Amino acid sequence: MKSKTNDLWKKEISRRDMLKISGVGILGATAALSGVGSAARAIGFDFFDDDDTADNKIDFYGKHQPGIATPPPSHVYFASLSVLIHSESELRDLFKDWTPIADRLMNGEMLEGPVGNARPPADTGESSGLDASNLTLTFGAGPSLFEKLGIKHKKPDELADLPHFPGDQIDPAYSGGDLCIQACADDPQVAFHAVRNLVRAASGKVRLKWTQAGFLPARKSGKPGETPRNLFAFKDGSVNTDPSNDKEMNKVVWVRPGDSAGWLTNGTFLAVRRIQMHLETWDRTALKDQEKTFGRHRDSGAPLGKKKEFDSVDLEEKDISGNPVIPADSHMALARQAKESIFRRGYSYSDGLVAETGAYDAGLLFISFQKHPKQFIAIQNALGRADKLNEYITHRGSALFACFPGIRKGGYIGESLFASI
Amino acid sequence: MKSKTNDLWKKEISRRDMLKISGVGILGATAALSGVGSAARAIGFDFFDDDDTADNKIDFYGKHQPGIATPPPSHVYFASLSVLIHSESELRDLFKDWTPIADRLMNGEMLEGPVGNARPPADTGESSGLDASNLTLTFGAGPSLFEKLGIKHKKPDELADLPHFPGDQIDPAYSGGDLCIQACADDPQVAFHAVRNLVRAASGKVRLKWTQAGFLPARKSGKPGETPRNLFAFKDGSVNTDPSNDKEMNKVVWVRPGDSAGWLTNGTFLAVRRIQMHLETWDRTALKDQEKTFGRHRDSGAPLGKKKEFDSVDLEEKDISGNPVIPADSHMALARQAKESIFRRGYSYSDGLVAETGAYDAGLLFISFQKHPKQFIAIQNALGRADKLNEYITHRGSALFACFPGIRKGGYIGESLFASI
Repeated sequence: MKSKTNDLWKKEISRRDMLKISGVGILGATAALSGVGSAARAIGFDFFDDDDTADNKIDFYGKHQPGIATPPPSHVYFASLSVLIHSESELRDLFKDWTPIADRLMNGEMLEGPVGNARPPADTGESSGLDASNLTLTFGAGPSLFEKLGIKHKKPDELADLPHFPGDQIDPAYSGGDLCIQACADDPQVAFHAVRNLVRAASGKVRLKWTQAGFLPARKSGKPGETPRNLFAFKDGSVNTDPSNDKEMNKVVWVRPGDSAGWLTNGTFLAVRRIQMHLETWDRTALKDQEKTFGRHRDSGAPLGKKKEFDSVDLEEKDISGNPVIPADSHMALARQAKESIFRRGYSYSDGLVAETGAYDAGLLFISFQKHPKQFIAIQNALGRADKLNEYITHRGSALFACFPGIRKGGYIGESLFASI
Repeated sequence: MKSKTNDLWKKEISRRDMLKISGVGILGATAALSGVGSAARAIGFDFFDDDDTADNKIDFYGKHQPGIATPPPSHVYFASLSVLIHSESELRDLFKDWTPIADRLMNGEMLEGPVGNARPPADTGESSGLDASNLTLTFGAGPSLFEKLGIKHKKPDELADLPHFPGDQIDPAYSGGDLCIQACADDPQVAFHAVRNLVRAASGKVRLKWTQAGFLPARKSGKPGETPRNLFAFKDGSVNTDPSNDKEMNKVVWVRPGDSAGWLTNGTFLAVRRIQMHLETWDRTALKDQEKTFGRHRDSGAPLGKKKEFDSVDLEEKDISGNPVIPADSHMALARQAKESIFRRGYSYSDGLVAETGAYDAGLLFISFQKHPKQFIAIQNALGRADKLNEYITHRGSALFACFPGIRKGGYIGESLFASI
């Protein structure tokens, strides 16, 4: 894919030294080793480097779907859908209907349809007058889809509900789904509008199962070069798979021929977790315990014992008492044990209060992309067992989707899935 | 108040013709007459006129509180609090504690406190590295506060729970409160951070009762001069009280000597309503019925039968069949019947789905300021009885607060309330 946005990544990376570390943990301040010499960079590296000359449009068509390797805008509206259709051909028709709509939405154009004030408007209209706001739309299929449509033979074996991890308290109201749409944009109204209009265009064919809005700091309010902070105030995404490095993306993110079902080549798996962060408890915790929990210094983002965010991590380093400088049960140390890499795109959320407790219903909408779900599962298993962070977080929602390869011009969403109809 | 931001209003108004109409309805596309010759303008008039040279700071100190007459940033985090204290002097101490914190927050500065990594950090830290983002903090007192503190004699008579309006389906989980903090900012993380740190600084003295996040279109994604649209896609705020017109603000918004309790002079009353908008039903409604519901054209925002958003409204005009061009049961026509004016600051919200129905839990966090609650009550009574819009909306949350006058440098929040302690 040669989108403007991928060029932005490359421009950024050329301005900075590459880091000789790879992979990330769930709350992003940690790294898992995926092998000697692999290179990674911060997904948030130039999060705040707002390019005012751009037209704020991202290509819908390409080798890979947008919203994966493209830089994360400030807002997400994530939607999990149930299908009401029963056959593969109906799904194909739906995806054919959605394709030009998604393209128009990502171009910041209003949807068109039969004209006349005796009809409902073709476009719900709340984004009228707004620009494309770097909208990306990313489509995926959940394991239940294949059963509902009677095409279980097409389901990759690895596309299965995520296992129960230690400490999970999963709420069905934020879990699973036959299809997903990840809508990311710099304007929450644009992201919401996109999902609303796609779902509306599929009336009678899909219904919303669950949705979650999320945010990152506004690009305008931070400084170029800074990594955005999560609601625990730790820099989130100091290390991540490098989206501008094709070799690394092929190794970690993109399904290659022979990796999975053939139709998923150039696609990826999306894991999503709604992780409540117990802010009240965190806010009563001493700074040194917060830092030992992550394995990093809060203000600088540096690994414990180091000065700068991108200083190298040494898990063997001992303090004068002989104890590890980075505790073995820290989020960073545990995530690295899994020796797996993922590519993450996390957003904070804040949804009012939990009715039963009055606590903030706030936290992280964790999203990661990987070529095989086992990459995420290995990391989450390592974290779930012993992560100090588990005192402060609870996983409340969970889903896994296979994200189709990119859409070719003249083609349609998920086309390769239907090659044999 | 001579804040930078009020100057911005004045700059804007000087570039445009003033309108000879006044007052607004609940969903903002309507106007109520407050008398011949009164002048109003669109609160959203230059919503998208982003001033990149500004330092994104708004004065905390002044004659009036910020967040009322200052232009609305793109995000709100509204918090209703219960007090856990029992005396007026404890409340005064709390307000004295909050005052320098609020000032620092609005300056984009981190909170300071005892240093040391054996303590929790003084600032929760998630806004570290972000600028002030035009943060405003607005404080108010609900009717229940005065009973809890044993100071009912200080409660203005008109500060009472809002009445039940026709069609109300009020959920206690989004209603009432002893105190409120309205935090508005261009960055949702900055607004959330402000409330979180104020509540944390008052640990054991207040607890959150309910909160609601909301958004407007991002300033960057729209065009200067355009009025933002609500989730029904209608321009929201085409007419409103003119915040740059002191005479009008004194007439509609600011409590003047003799209007209410003396301590509230230069303050105002804040009415807040969480209004669910039934998007699915709306999206199935013909454009002409949508337009008759509001009394305006959707795309242009013009009154029905007119061409431009700011064309004058003529409720007497008839079509060739002799029917009113603007239906008598339209939101606009009904709101004008009340012959009252308010000053509104509305935000859209989108909180996932309603558990029972799977419908969007989305709509409008309606906030209005007025010198007497009867202004809002008269309009809402007129709307509640017959508004065509009521087929498409349900009021789910409700609260009323008396917002203190502005804070003088060297003084503290709510100082006038304690003058007689």
